[in-house]
Amino acid sequence: MITTRLTELLGLEQPLILGPMAAVAGGRLAAAVSNAGGLGLVGGGYGRMDWLQRELSLVRSSTQRPWGIGLITWSIDRDKLDAALASNPDVVFLSFGDPRPHAARIKAKSCKLICQVQDVAGALLAKAAGADAIVAQGTEGGGHGGQRATLPLIPAVVDAVDPIPVVAAGGIADGRGLAAALMLGAQGALLGTRFYCTTEALGDEGAKQRIVEARGDHTRRTRVFDAARGYHWPDGYTGRALHNAFMDRWEGHEQDLAASTVARDAFRAAVAVRDYDTAMVWAGECVDLIHSVETTAAVVTRISREAEAILRTASTHVSGT
Amino acid sequence: MITTRLTELLGLEQPLILGPMAAVAGGRLAAAVSNAGGLGLVGGGYGRMDWLQRELSLVRSSTQRPWGIGLITWSIDRDKLDAALASNPDVVFLSFGDPRPHAARIKAKSCKLICQVQDVAGALLAKAAGADAIVAQGTEGGGHGGQRATLPLIPAVVDAVDPIPVVAAGGIADGRGLAAALMLGAQGALLGTRFYCTTEALGDEGAKQRIVEARGDHTRRTRVFDAARGYHWPDGYTGRALHNAFMDRWEGHEQDLAASTVARDAFRAAVAVRDYDTAMVWAGECVDLIHSVETTAAVVTRISREAEAILRTASTHVSGT
Repeated sequence: MITTRLTELLGLEQPLILGPMAAVAGGRLAAAVSNAGGLGLVGGGYGRMDWLQRELSLVRSSTQRPWGIGLITWSIDRDKLDAALASNPDVVFLSFGDPRPHAARIKAKSCKLICQVQDVAGALLAKAAGADAIVAQGTEGGGHGGQRATLPLIPAVVDAVDPIPVVAAGGIADGRGLAAALMLGAQGALLGTRFYCTTEALGDEGAKQRIVEARGDHTRRTRVFDAARGYHWPDGYTGRALHNAFMDRWEGHEQDLAASTVARDAFRAAVAVRDYDTAMVWAGECVDLIHSVETTAAVVTRISREAEAILRTASTHVSGT
Repeated sequence: MITTRLTELLGLEQPLILGPMAAVAGGRLAAAVSNAGGLGLVGGGYGRMDWLQRELSLVRSSTQRPWGIGLITWSIDRDKLDAALASNPDVVFLSFGDPRPHAARIKAKSCKLICQVQDVAGALLAKAAGADAIVAQGTEGGGHGGQRATLPLIPAVVDAVDPIPVVAAGGIADGRGLAAALMLGAQGALLGTRFYCTTEALGDEGAKQRIVEARGDHTRRTRVFDAARGYHWPDGYTGRALHNAFMDRWEGHEQDLAASTVARDAFRAAVAVRDYDTAMVWAGECVDLIHSVETTAAVVTRISREAEAILRTASTHVSGT
């Protein structure tokens, strides 16, 4: 068992958080992570409330441990937030936008607020919002994010918001990454891509298999898939996905893509038939470290054991006085 | 004292390597790092042999400890390598290109070969060259480099080349970063930007002060400064520098810049008068962690002590069985 200020804050057995990946982190995966001792987060995505209500019911009925819901800050309004809070999550996780307008409503429900940020300025906003913990997300992570890399970002955020617990996200898929995060001053790690490749994750087996087979060099940050889907992300955010032919075709021509009904219909059709030469598979650079689809419990156990072993023997590097 | 396979291989007291920054890592800085217990490397840059001979004489006369020379692989030929080897360095460090054509000449001199790589494919080339150690350099580092981030790159390279010692580069400027690198499976860390901000580093005080004042969000990877200087770097490499007005002006117009005698003359003039709104200051994202210009000995001592303290107490995170 690894104890940090994060595990104490939330009552976890391991300092591991599930990245609330839209359409991947449903109630089953969130409950599996929570039942394994981490913090499961349902991916609220762009706020399709029927889907979300179903998944929130599922996680509530599947775990007695703390769990939460992740929302895309710029895409929510008061109604969506209230609907999420009505399911009594232990944690609301806000990413991609200013959390301050929503903080009071969340904290009034005795719900913990975790904010994910991509730079030091964002961390200071999260601190001002009264965040109970701050996830600092590096650019090597899968899906949407910013430009800063995890290794130098974590200590910079820790220095800026101490003593608020900081969690490292981006590039972590094994016990080595978790142990490294703790050395940087983080109190835990958030993992997305690694939990994508579990049996409990929603999402197609073909996509999971593409991640298992990919190398870290095969991912790119892009706006192409947002343009294809008609999502208007604010400046500064791109999404990291496995490189594919559709990305090559449209990179640098996102406005043409957004304006092309034909191209967008073709994209939707490819998503429907799970053609990943066109459809996106969000994934981070840590794909080098993912070799198979496993149960969530197996993933959490192995990462925790590996990190524990590394931390236990860390002092053997040091000799003399 | 921190002992790893790297310190044992090279006879170091701390697993720290100086990044061989062109025009910054001269003989004085290299000797200072070696005398402090790390490995000092003179930055051979683009192979101006008169400058290099002077700096190599300086490092040879200034330390009894192991030291080396760093070369840009694609810019050297046999004559330049032989001239470097004639100064009897303990280490030759090759980065940015295929090291295999040069490996035999280096190893015939009983000189250790360290190769710096930016991805797993490069690490496999370095292994094929017979590298004694491999530096895996993340995109968050200052100066020239590739696209992969340090945190997920290190364990991927370790897995690919084990048991060759791997060294982490990019984003490391304090003891937290060094300790994290060791947790990832690295045997040490290479630091550039942190050693730029020392009293022994060549380079202008104004540039050092810009780094001290900068935040990590203020750096960008670019080809603009290579175009301005007429250097033809191979595809895949860009340089990370502090963001400035010249970068804004020419980003996306590098070919026009390379073709403009007027613009390039103006750039040279700005370099001569140390106008950093135009001239480049290479720097990595770790600038958040650099708060003053200090002596090299003070930097090495603080990083080592901090890493030692973190490693000694790492096991306190783990409880139970």
